[in-house]
Amino acid sequence: MKTKPNDTRFPNEGRFAYDGLDRVIHERARLSVLTSLITHPKGLSFVELKKLCTLTDGNLARHLQVLEEEGLVRIDKNQESARTQTITRITATGRKRYLEYLNTLEQVIKDAAKAAKQQASPETPHLKPIKT
Amino acid sequence: MKTKPNDTRFPNEGRFAYDGLDRVIHERARLSVLTSLITHPKGLSFVELKKLCTLTDGNLARHLQVLEEEGLVRIDKNQESARTQTITRITATGRKRYLEYLNTLEQVIKDAAKAAKQQASPETPHLKPIKT
Repeated sequence: MKTKPNDTRFPNEGRFAYDGLDRVIHERARLSVLTSLITHPKGLSFVELKKLCTLTDGNLARHLQVLEEEGLVRIDKNQESARTQTITRITATGRKRYLEYLNTLEQVIKDAAKAAKQQASPETPHLKPIKT
Repeated sequence: MKTKPNDTRFPNEGRFAYDGLDRVIHERARLSVLTSLITHPKGLSFVELKKLCTLTDGNLARHLQVLEEEGLVRIDKNQESARTQTITRITATGRKRYLEYLNTLEQVIKDAAKAAKQQASPETPHLKPIKT
């Protein structure tokens, strides 16, 4: 059961919900593919993507289909190649959604990093370790 | 079909594979829960976790079970409370695996942020895309 928003007993409601972690992008293989593509604006061939992301043919094909259906990537025949080859590029929509996703990812790191490093540091013995 | 590792034609094989994105932690709800817990070393009650992560009872219970089975959290009866209440804490193992996960997440951001910002900025047309 979800409680009503703006429940005054819980002013921090949703503080760690990270709604911006777009499920289409957050899936690990798709995050791999999109990060490869955003760093290669001229696009990548199927084989290049497969290698960079260490994915099987079937896995890569399945994830590319999801990304294409969502309008995040565009898959074109490469006209310059003698052999039939496709080139995948990130679209403007894909870049926009990826950057929004990245903002939330940075927030996760900000939230966690400080707490994690404080607790891990032996130089701060006044902080009680967590008993497990 | 996966190709052999150390394929000399592809020196960047696996460059964007991000194997460190531990699937147990990467799932969005579990990432929410663990980030809540690492910032609250004294632990959180079920209701507090539910609120902070905007999860339903059923969803939270299911994800806590996965995290407990993996040894990443510990769920205890709260002795100080008059009512029956459980307190969930992150374990030492949980902290270690979360920090390893965080390192890979930081690498994703490093890889993406520079490329993304360069392309978004019309002031830097001279910057070459990353070659692979």
